[in-house]
Amino acid sequence: MSELKSAAGELDAADELAALRERFVLDDVVYLDGNSLGALPAGVPARVADVVGRQWGELRIRSWEESGWWSAPERIGDRIAPLVGAAAGQIVVGDSTSVNVFKALVAAVRMAGEGRDEILVDATTFPTDGYIAESAARMTGCALRPVAPSEVPSALGDRTAAVLLNHVDYRTGRLHDLPALTAAVHAAGAYVVWDLCHSAGALPVGLDEHGVDLAVGCTYKYLNGGPGSPAYLYVRRDLQNRFDSPLPGWNSHAEPFGMRPAYAPASGAVRGRVGTPDILSMLALEAALDVWEGVPVEAVRAKSLALTDFFLRCVGEYVPDGRVELLTPAAHAERGSQVALRCDDAGDVMKRLIERGVVGDFRAPDVLRFGFTPLYVGFADVERAARVLAEAVV
Amino acid sequence: MSELKSAAGELDAADELAALRERFVLDDVVYLDGNSLGALPAGVPARVADVVGRQWGELRIRSWEESGWWSAPERIGDRIAPLVGAAAGQIVVGDSTSVNVFKALVAAVRMAGEGRDEILVDATTFPTDGYIAESAARMTGCALRPVAPSEVPSALGDRTAAVLLNHVDYRTGRLHDLPALTAAVHAAGAYVVWDLCHSAGALPVGLDEHGVDLAVGCTYKYLNGGPGSPAYLYVRRDLQNRFDSPLPGWNSHAEPFGMRPAYAPASGAVRGRVGTPDILSMLALEAALDVWEGVPVEAVRAKSLALTDFFLRCVGEYVPDGRVELLTPAAHAERGSQVALRCDDAGDVMKRLIERGVVGDFRAPDVLRFGFTPLYVGFADVERAARVLAEAVV
Repeated sequence: MSELKSAAGELDAADELAALRERFVLDDVVYLDGNSLGALPAGVPARVADVVGRQWGELRIRSWEESGWWSAPERIGDRIAPLVGAAAGQIVVGDSTSVNVFKALVAAVRMAGEGRDEILVDATTFPTDGYIAESAARMTGCALRPVAPSEVPSALGDRTAAVLLNHVDYRTGRLHDLPALTAAVHAAGAYVVWDLCHSAGALPVGLDEHGVDLAVGCTYKYLNGGPGSPAYLYVRRDLQNRFDSPLPGWNSHAEPFGMRPAYAPASGAVRGRVGTPDILSMLALEAALDVWEGVPVEAVRAKSLALTDFFLRCVGEYVPDGRVELLTPAAHAERGSQVALRCDDAGDVMKRLIERGVVGDFRAPDVLRFGFTPLYVGFADVERAARVLAEAVV
Repeated sequence: MSELKSAAGELDAADELAALRERFVLDDVVYLDGNSLGALPAGVPARVADVVGRQWGELRIRSWEESGWWSAPERIGDRIAPLVGAAAGQIVVGDSTSVNVFKALVAAVRMAGEGRDEILVDATTFPTDGYIAESAARMTGCALRPVAPSEVPSALGDRTAAVLLNHVDYRTGRLHDLPALTAAVHAAGAYVVWDLCHSAGALPVGLDEHGVDLAVGCTYKYLNGGPGSPAYLYVRRDLQNRFDSPLPGWNSHAEPFGMRPAYAPASGAVRGRVGTPDILSMLALEAALDVWEGVPVEAVRAKSLALTDFFLRCVGEYVPDGRVELLTPAAHAERGSQVALRCDDAGDVMKRLIERGVVGDFRAPDVLRFGFTPLYVGFADVERAARVLAEAVV
């Protein structure tokens, strides 16, 4: 047995989270694409079958009350809250990340008030955030200015209304400094919206602790909510009364069943709701969140760093020099739970990896992405992935 | 046996659509709330189990291509198209009705161009449309003017940019004259957005035939898509290149996986997409649409009118005079597939009805609503509902 294989065995044997893998439906594929679509939690199929067959099929309309459908967006928000360091009552689930970015950014600009007419957006963002920020700017009379996250502090000024940032870069896996950037935005009198898609469920976020204003995120990556499962919106408690939604659907009304012609916003996080919640997807997500029972995010972070460290070590030993280039920062403080490697023929290499049972993904034009979900990825998986990568690049 | 009971028996025996009831999971409850949440189609549970267990659980990320997840919004849009009189390529499924109203109304105002700065909205609308219209007006610099649908022709003018109307009123069940109102809006040089929530699946809509510009609708009422199933957006083919979305998420990009920093809209209906589609709910809807196999919408409309006619006859004979007041127009041309009765103690009456196995719903402050889904409601159900109503109002 090679040195790395035996190292993997030792790491797996000492892994306190190893047993969590049994909470998922997995096979002998090394699944390193949980940063795109999390694996299926074992409890989800039975729960979904109950929602469809009994709650919808038998109780039908009564389920809006009796099965807790109506309150699902805020109830599930409260399940996500501890995973991102938020007290209850500040998160609602629903709509896509894109739609929530629009709500949050427009609301942030409105909070900033007159005289502040510029939105800063992460220039390296997953594109949808930039597209939506452009629309939010256009519709609120703001200018949009793309800047690299590291340049945000120097770009802030009296005109800055809002700043949209990614906690972890989708492409490189770089972790940005949420506490420092949030403090810088606040020092300039502006509001910050954090996109947590690539960090929630993989590392501690500390929304409350760091005084974040607004945040959004998807639930189908490290939260394992299923394909296209609804996103969420965090509005810090003391800002909720000033949250002025551009999508004031009836679910956000103070009296949704009053059928009032005039809009009056609800109190609290509920103000972030829009239309009728998507129950099947939402309750699948609720069941998926059961896998977090008794799992501290800090332990997840520790294992995540150990996994990515070990992957970098294995890649360093197995893959011929110069064949791939590391895009993810080596420093722990700057690394999310993904490793991105630049590779000229990344598309072809990823095809060969997948054929050989190692599933990551390819991002145009030349990036191999490998996501490490600490709940179900082990160190032997990591060693195998690097070994197969070495074969695939030859 | 009473005359009405035997009349019901004859009507059921002659009903060519009677066998369709077997395509649904039903019990001995008379379910007259399909205008709020349609009953469960029998094929849905197995399909959802496959989507969860095999497509997500086994294929995981590969399903975006291999299971047709990525193209689901337009594929399922094409399944809805014939039910609302639209040729293929003009409907995408996704997001809530409220979000789609926002997209459609903002896009309509942008099509109308400079100099047109007023939005007309149905003053009797289901509230969310009015709330969202107010936001769309605010964000496009328009004035919002609520008018009764009958007064729309006289309210139209050179300043009118867009008009948002409901095909069937959610409260009274009144069917508005889509062809005439659409023609009036066009004669004024404005754009019309129709909300089809309470008509699609219950009667012919004729979107293409009548030259409708934009339309939205939910899928959980007469289309039986399940609780909170995704809504849809229709953009007439010749307007698609001018559809300028306020929610230009990455799914609407010409090259969504190109990860381009600059937004470039896709061609066609796909331009109405926003973020990652909600796959579980969307594929449940796709399975639900199988119940329409071989069912002409015209036959559904004929049965719908026969059911509501018969309900009115039974109520007239059974319910003591003056106890309820008909809010739904008697004329066929003005009636959707629902009967609304005003009743002082409607909330209590509906509770008693539900206790006795007849499920309609209550809308504040004083309306009893009964929806008649022709695919699974029969004439004996109708007679029983009226009979139980007569007992419940005593």
